[in-house]
Amino acid sequence: MGFGCVGQGLYDILQQLPGFGAEVRRIAVKNPTKTRSLPADRFEYHADALLDDPELDVLVEVIDDAAEAFRLVKAALQQGRRVVTANKAMLARHLPELVQLQDEFGGTLLYEAAVCGSIPILRTLDAHFGSEPLRSVSGILNGSSNYVLTRMTQEGTDYAAALAEAQLLGFAETDPTLDMAAFDPRSKAVILAAHAYGLFLKPEQVLHLGIEGITPTDIAYAKAQGLKIKVVATLEQLPDGRVTALVAPTFVAESSPLYTVEHEFNGVILEAAFAGTQFLRGRGAGGHPTGSAVLADLAALRQKRAYTYTKLRQPAAAFTTDLAVEIYLRSPSESIREDLALTDISLEGTGPDGYFAVGFTTLARLLKQREKLREAGALVVRTGPISALQEARHSAQEALAQ
Amino acid sequence: MGFGCVGQGLYDILQQLPGFGAEVRRIAVKNPTKTRSLPADRFEYHADALLDDPELDVLVEVIDDAAEAFRLVKAALQQGRRVVTANKAMLARHLPELVQLQDEFGGTLLYEAAVCGSIPILRTLDAHFGSEPLRSVSGILNGSSNYVLTRMTQEGTDYAAALAEAQLLGFAETDPTLDMAAFDPRSKAVILAAHAYGLFLKPEQVLHLGIEGITPTDIAYAKAQGLKIKVVATLEQLPDGRVTALVAPTFVAESSPLYTVEHEFNGVILEAAFAGTQFLRGRGAGGHPTGSAVLADLAALRQKRAYTYTKLRQPAAAFTTDLAVEIYLRSPSESIREDLALTDISLEGTGPDGYFAVGFTTLARLLKQREKLREAGALVVRTGPISALQEARHSAQEALAQ
Repeated sequence: MGFGCVGQGLYDILQQLPGFGAEVRRIAVKNPTKTRSLPADRFEYHADALLDDPELDVLVEVIDDAAEAFRLVKAALQQGRRVVTANKAMLARHLPELVQLQDEFGGTLLYEAAVCGSIPILRTLDAHFGSEPLRSVSGILNGSSNYVLTRMTQEGTDYAAALAEAQLLGFAETDPTLDMAAFDPRSKAVILAAHAYGLFLKPEQVLHLGIEGITPTDIAYAKAQGLKIKVVATLEQLPDGRVTALVAPTFVAESSPLYTVEHEFNGVILEAAFAGTQFLRGRGAGGHPTGSAVLADLAALRQKRAYTYTKLRQPAAAFTTDLAVEIYLRSPSESIREDLALTDISLEGTGPDGYFAVGFTTLARLLKQREKLREAGALVVRTGPISALQEARHSAQEALAQ
Repeated sequence: MGFGCVGQGLYDILQQLPGFGAEVRRIAVKNPTKTRSLPADRFEYHADALLDDPELDVLVEVIDDAAEAFRLVKAALQQGRRVVTANKAMLARHLPELVQLQDEFGGTLLYEAAVCGSIPILRTLDAHFGSEPLRSVSGILNGSSNYVLTRMTQEGTDYAAALAEAQLLGFAETDPTLDMAAFDPRSKAVILAAHAYGLFLKPEQVLHLGIEGITPTDIAYAKAQGLKIKVVATLEQLPDGRVTALVAPTFVAESSPLYTVEHEFNGVILEAAFAGTQFLRGRGAGGHPTGSAVLADLAALRQKRAYTYTKLRQPAAAFTTDLAVEIYLRSPSESIREDLALTDISLEGTGPDGYFAVGFTTLARLLKQREKLREAGALVVRTGPISALQEARHSAQEALAQ
């Protein structure tokens, strides 16, 4: 179901691997008039007809529309079917129900392609680190925005030109909001939270700051300190056991493995209690890389493998956003500073792109003010770690400041 | 069975994870007089008694002695038991028989800890890339020699001092030959060949060149060109379908992910047909990191997961060492040049550590002359890719030269 970038990629892979022994029996698409790489008689236009076909062993759902994807996947799981999906927005919204449907009807849902394209991060979290506590999971989960940031950093291109280039190369959608405003990596962070911490989060609980406000001045500011700006998703378990999650532009030093993740590549760092630091890097976009992850899921289904969801079966950790974080703020208007109740300001001034400051705020406040930041065309970049230890001190100062 | 670095690491991890629900019922060790971190009454001295105990769900074999390890693991598999081992030398020697024993008696053998410590490379190859062709698998598989090379490169330390430091820190054995002469990464390359290419190799088929002959001059030569010397294991499928494998010191450029793998860390690059380049990095040694991989195997056994060995069930590719390779040769004596039939020499001279040259030879010839190279105290470093294309041309020149 679906024959866009991922669907075509998978089709192509299966044609090249006749020994794999999978036959693409039926392909359902939405638009009957679109020109496609296969003859028109290879397609049909009612996905429900596939649901009604008992001869199909596996359903692969790779359509764009999250609501329709949920309807189809849910119906398939209610039949106890084996399903593969790549739809992260749908998964982030409905994972609890999809897990419950698997439990209830005995079907299986796999979705490796939904997070980090070709990197087997979900399989690694589920099958290898399912029993080991993780201190943190952090990474670059969105290839499109990473491509834009790479071009701005390497070539000094401005945001609009870098975005246009990414769109031309097929790395970014015509409506770039999902990627550039970090909705897409937020969905992936929500899925990771389930597998890494056994935590079902609602997308709205996770702060997501994008790069729509970024200017060459910001890139230059980072460069002058030997840093790069990357959109980093972070899940972290605090020493007291609580878990937090956010997606935000972040200053990344050369000592971080994420510094080497360029263009449309993705990368993930796991800090495991016993294994120590693990780093995985691979292509985060493209038909073949993403199709490769779907292929791996098809092979896993053949082996009767499902996610174990080991951490979901354990008592859930508490989730918090009541944490201090140091940020670099740059905004056309200075009033944003008040909205964020910026304290401990170590740098402040006005430059060619408006007001800038480095200081502390809290995740909760950033979450609350997120839309205002976006409307103001502001950019927020994390400068340092999130910290529970700074929380008390910061709250006290914030109280004083009010 | 065994309570060395890995055994203690695993014991410690299981104590810290009571929720995992595994009880270490019996521990067999060899030496009754050695001081250990647990009371003496926790140990027994006849591993066979564990084989005879039907109440043990899983046997974990983490002893040093490869022959004894094989005897124990074989006996356990003949009982259809579930076994975890970390013994790479044993696996490299006996993998075909161990796979056959699993098929015959229905037992399961897992051994993630045998290759790259904490990195889930076998699980990734087996469960994620089992159906996808791989162009190459290359990596730093030995933490001890990598630690020595890192110290020599960073501090200008000479080989003996860097080795002594590695031994002091517990990263290298008292007899360093297994690590420094690359026997250990050769074993790991043999195991990788089974999972990445479905190929059962004998250890003797795989060239393994070590760093025992390395001097600060060699490090300086690499540095002057912006390169590092790393011991890299390479498995590669040639365009004609044949597969080759070797382990050798290699000049690594900053553009390679392996350039960033330092100290006792390991790193692996996969070049997959559809996924593209994947890179994995993590700790390659230490009780907790390696114990973490054993823990993951215990969790997998609970899920009734075994290796699928998908590629072993397919027609095997042909193995070849009849390939040209460009090397940097440095040796106290010049006569080695003749032994290697060095051709296309682009650099040649005599320096403080003797004769040096850059030229071409073949993998087959290096394999044949390996002991001679070692006796002569020579160092061989790969400078470029192995190449089937250069083969014909090179063979012709070699014939002329004789």
